[in-house]
Amino acid sequence: VVFTESAPCLSSAEEAQTLKMSSDALAYTVAGVAVGAAAAYLLAPSKRAKREPFELRYFPVMAKGLGPTLVAEFSGLPWVGNKDLGFIARGGPPGNNFADIKENLPFGQLPLLTTAAGDMIAQTTAIVNYIGMLAGTEGSGLDYGISQMLIAEAEDIYAMMARNVPTIVAPLNQGIKGDKAAYDLFWSEKLPPHLANLERMCKAGRGFETPGGVYLFSILHQLCLVVPSVLSGSAALSAWYKKTLNDPRTAKVLAGESSMGAFKQYFIEEP
Amino acid sequence: VVFTESAPCLSSAEEAQTLKMSSDALAYTVAGVAVGAAAAYLLAPSKRAKREPFELRYFPVMAKGLGPTLVAEFSGLPWVGNKDLGFIARGGPPGNNFADIKENLPFGQLPLLTTAAGDMIAQTTAIVNYIGMLAGTEGSGLDYGISQMLIAEAEDIYAMMARNVPTIVAPLNQGIKGDKAAYDLFWSEKLPPHLANLERMCKAGRGFETPGGVYLFSILHQLCLVVPSVLSGSAALSAWYKKTLNDPRTAKVLAGESSMGAFKQYFIEEP
Repeated sequence: VVFTESAPCLSSAEEAQTLKMSSDALAYTVAGVAVGAAAAYLLAPSKRAKREPFELRYFPVMAKGLGPTLVAEFSGLPWVGNKDLGFIARGGPPGNNFADIKENLPFGQLPLLTTAAGDMIAQTTAIVNYIGMLAGTEGSGLDYGISQMLIAEAEDIYAMMARNVPTIVAPLNQGIKGDKAAYDLFWSEKLPPHLANLERMCKAGRGFETPGGVYLFSILHQLCLVVPSVLSGSAALSAWYKKTLNDPRTAKVLAGESSMGAFKQYFIEEP
Repeated sequence: VVFTESAPCLSSAEEAQTLKMSSDALAYTVAGVAVGAAAAYLLAPSKRAKREPFELRYFPVMAKGLGPTLVAEFSGLPWVGNKDLGFIARGGPPGNNFADIKENLPFGQLPLLTTAAGDMIAQTTAIVNYIGMLAGTEGSGLDYGISQMLIAEAEDIYAMMARNVPTIVAPLNQGIKGDKAAYDLFWSEKLPPHLANLERMCKAGRGFETPGGVYLFSILHQLCLVVPSVLSGSAALSAWYKKTLNDPRTAKVLAGESSMGAFKQYFIEEP
């Protein structure tokens, strides 16, 4: 090894110290960056997952219970539902049935989410959004916007179903239900434009893998149980529906194996 | 000043260096923490305020336009509405009226929010939530949950109004509107339990200063324009309503001085 006169060398203790300082400075800076980033993350206004389980209560029918249950199952958060709570809406044990808790519910209605702190969140769409916020699965930017649109659109479709499709407890021509002509009109003319709009959005390929998408699935699934071919003219929507249907989390919920237990089909075919 | 024998002193260059190192280490660490925190903040998935204005379009009536407009005005974000866009829903210039844009709207409906990037967010509740997300005013934890409940409850009340209260375009006994008996039943029996639930929540003192609270105000205000005494039995709700009504941002919107321009009252008293 030959050192030329111009080769850099450590000629004094001072220079050695300077180099060591640079190296130390880098190390301290890197460590500082890591600590700072971690602190910023941990101290950020915390809206995220509290790991204590929340609770879900509803009647043992799909209706407006299937959606929140699927959103809970898809959230990855721990939660406890009807089955594991021993909640039986009609005829359950004291304090664990709808009649006993109705008066204290925010709007006298189920579904109900109860937080680990004991706070009650009612209203289906509020529960869906609350779980998304807790889990951090609500999406950002346009995905968040689409998720919110899908929730609202699912509500619009549900409201039409409630007025035009019979259920296991309410036949046509009773209460708010329309007649057979309204039932036919729903499937032939009222629903198709909604499905066409959803098909267009789904085709664009964004925002359906969100709580809003999962909630929409829960409503479309109830349409499919009444008229299995209802999505046959909507290729993209149908593919997304089948993918979501075959998701292991969906399969678990529909098999009655989630913490919510079994769901009865609510909307039925006009006899 | 007396130095005792045991007083600490800088006895060697080595000790001086050690102290300097500690001080440098601290400085570098602090700087690193600052850089790291800033980087974490800037690189975090950005869901917050884009400062480019978003656009709002609706018919020149309160109905479902007052709510999104108030939420926009309360958000503190820059936005442009009907008036400044030159959008006139009925009879506006080419491309700047409802008939011309209807086909391209996500669900063929107004209100419409258009993002700075040109993306369309439709459905009133989706717009309210989207603005809250953009502005970071959506609340966290229970406040977020209450905001979502108020949005859903406002929708429930609006749906009842749509079926039972005449508008400037639809009298009773027409389309989905009920008759005079249904109108009377709405005020005397259907609405009061909803107001009682809201009164209880409002009294608890949380979550009403949110986008959901502002949206609820926009619906309650439309009830008050038809029956001014409607909140007289709800002390907390009434106080909050008056406070929100007197907010300068509300006054500006109701005076027609926001970017949205003037709003006509939509729901009216049964003649």
